[in-house]
Amino acid sequence: MNVTVRGRRRHYRTVQFEARTNRVLLIEQRLLPHQFKIVGTRDYRETAAAIRDMVVRGAGAIGATAAYGLAQGARAFRGKDLRKWARHVETVFQTLKAARPTAVDPVNAMLGVRRHMAKGTSVQEQQELALVAAEAFADEDVAHCQAIGEHGAKLIRSGMQVLTHCNAGWLAFVDVGSATAPMYAAQELGRRFHVFCDETRPRSQGATLTAWELAQQGISHQIIADNAAGLLFARGKIDLVIVGSDRTLGRTGEVANKIGTYTKAVLAHRHGVPFYVAIPLSTIDWEMRRGGDIPIEERNEAEVLGAWGVNRRGRREYVRVANPTSGAFNPGFDVTPPELITGIITPAGIFKPRELRTGMRSSS
Amino acid sequence: MNVTVRGRRRHYRTVQFEARTNRVLLIEQRLLPHQFKIVGTRDYRETAAAIRDMVVRGAGAIGATAAYGLAQGARAFRGKDLRKWARHVETVFQTLKAARPTAVDPVNAMLGVRRHMAKGTSVQEQQELALVAAEAFADEDVAHCQAIGEHGAKLIRSGMQVLTHCNAGWLAFVDVGSATAPMYAAQELGRRFHVFCDETRPRSQGATLTAWELAQQGISHQIIADNAAGLLFARGKIDLVIVGSDRTLGRTGEVANKIGTYTKAVLAHRHGVPFYVAIPLSTIDWEMRRGGDIPIEERNEAEVLGAWGVNRRGRREYVRVANPTSGAFNPGFDVTPPELITGIITPAGIFKPRELRTGMRSSS
Repeated sequence: MNVTVRGRRRHYRTVQFEARTNRVLLIEQRLLPHQFKIVGTRDYRETAAAIRDMVVRGAGAIGATAAYGLAQGARAFRGKDLRKWARHVETVFQTLKAARPTAVDPVNAMLGVRRHMAKGTSVQEQQELALVAAEAFADEDVAHCQAIGEHGAKLIRSGMQVLTHCNAGWLAFVDVGSATAPMYAAQELGRRFHVFCDETRPRSQGATLTAWELAQQGISHQIIADNAAGLLFARGKIDLVIVGSDRTLGRTGEVANKIGTYTKAVLAHRHGVPFYVAIPLSTIDWEMRRGGDIPIEERNEAEVLGAWGVNRRGRREYVRVANPTSGAFNPGFDVTPPELITGIITPAGIFKPRELRTGMRSSS
Repeated sequence: MNVTVRGRRRHYRTVQFEARTNRVLLIEQRLLPHQFKIVGTRDYRETAAAIRDMVVRGAGAIGATAAYGLAQGARAFRGKDLRKWARHVETVFQTLKAARPTAVDPVNAMLGVRRHMAKGTSVQEQQELALVAAEAFADEDVAHCQAIGEHGAKLIRSGMQVLTHCNAGWLAFVDVGSATAPMYAAQELGRRFHVFCDETRPRSQGATLTAWELAQQGISHQIIADNAAGLLFARGKIDLVIVGSDRTLGRTGEVANKIGTYTKAVLAHRHGVPFYVAIPLSTIDWEMRRGGDIPIEERNEAEVLGAWGVNRRGRREYVRVANPTSGAFNPGFDVTPPELITGIITPAGIFKPRELRTGMRSSS
């Protein structure tokens, strides 16, 4: 998307590759929204570290970063010995995979790159194919998000007030995003609407990343405490909810997403407000049979007990908010059942949550 | 309640009066939970400033502070001229009233003190009666909270997990509290239970004040992000919800309380979990006919955009969390309808929200 940096407006992707210098270029997301900075990783080990240390986060974005990282590592190889070459590529693959062991996207992205590389017969040919495949992966991620936007834009009319939770924006993908894609597409169609961003405690991705994205695109928005949505629903101030998903069960239509999503779905249902989930195909889990089987990560309690921000002197700092002798319980995700979900917006169209499987089949 | 300060355990009230020095002694609540400190106001102007600047907050606590402040101001008068005396008392009254203009408790408390003072014929007699009346007001606040505790304790059995929102604890009253009163009473009866404290963004009174109270009383508890309750309800981990109220409509049973209360009531209702509101009689509004008429204060957006806490060097500091070019919408309260409320715990007993009026009449 377009970002204004020191008065200049330019288009950026979250993840890009600079072939001349063999560097992966990443938006340093840990500095947002207080500073916009592009960092370049000089080799695949630095790229793995960037994934591990959350310089880049979000399913699509880390998938593309791993794909580029594999190409980067492959392109750094010198020599023609195919056995040494194979060992090298395997090392690169495993290093990048180990950077975020529970995520499925980097592995799937790299397997795709490797399949494409295998069509080459020499080291040089395979090196070239690796980059072609990584670029194709990134482009496909963008195309999928754009397709989500085209389908989802039909839901947003001028004058609407839209609620979103957490960040399923372009920063979580290569570009455009999932939950934000319909907003960006509706804006391009000239529609004027207002977005309420849930703060999304404890990590505040709504107040930091989503609000920054919307401000950069000039979309009218306000941040609200996660507690405030109930009042807005009760007063008829929310017309539509769109959120993303970390894992959607293809068999049941259950949606795992950032903690707090379920609460918003319950409120939307009570007030008859449409609740949509926007997802790329890669987040659909076709195997799992019950939402209760989705592992819910319990995160560090320090996230709940305090907050990261910028102090008066402009320095990033963590402050302890809570009582120092109290602990916290910090689950990362919750699961929303299909009866609370109006529709799931995918690159292939919008489907009822229980009709994902039949819907996807008939459209493929 | 009992507080341990530097290894010594002592009983404190939130508000006390030291007759010898004519000072109102207050727990400096702005320093909690990071520091426990008692401050003494030397005259009624300082007492008014303490109310205005939130050294003390909470309906019962500011009521008692105003009552003591009126006695303090009255006792500082020198002379026997009844006309000068009347003018002086009026000035004290108006100064304390203006400290928190929208609150009803300080005014009601001071009117009670003045009615009692009027029974005296000399300045000295009236000065003595003022303190007697202020002490009686504070004692009655404590007795009401204890009665709430006795009625509410029946709801808490050993092994239960209880959710509460914001701080309706002893810090908001003279002692014991409203929503916390049943917990303290159940603990005295030897019951062992666990409390989840909603963080209660944006001002985090759950993470700071309620968690501090429960830690001081040795009640098992954990702080959760406001987003996390949905998952706990869905997993059957919450057996009971108890919250306080800023204003309860006697005619309809609607309850205005800290923003986010309504959301918890909706979740409790969906999952069949009992939802109780604990209130002293002074928060019942017998006049207003519709919850929609309750004014919802919109607070400073800085509360939502950042957080106050203690940094690594132990200094209190505000950090800006949110995107610097985004604004916030920050309503302070929401309204919970009677159909979501299992019962209202009052000093006079537990009533269905729609039966408040008949219930209170028959018990009086």
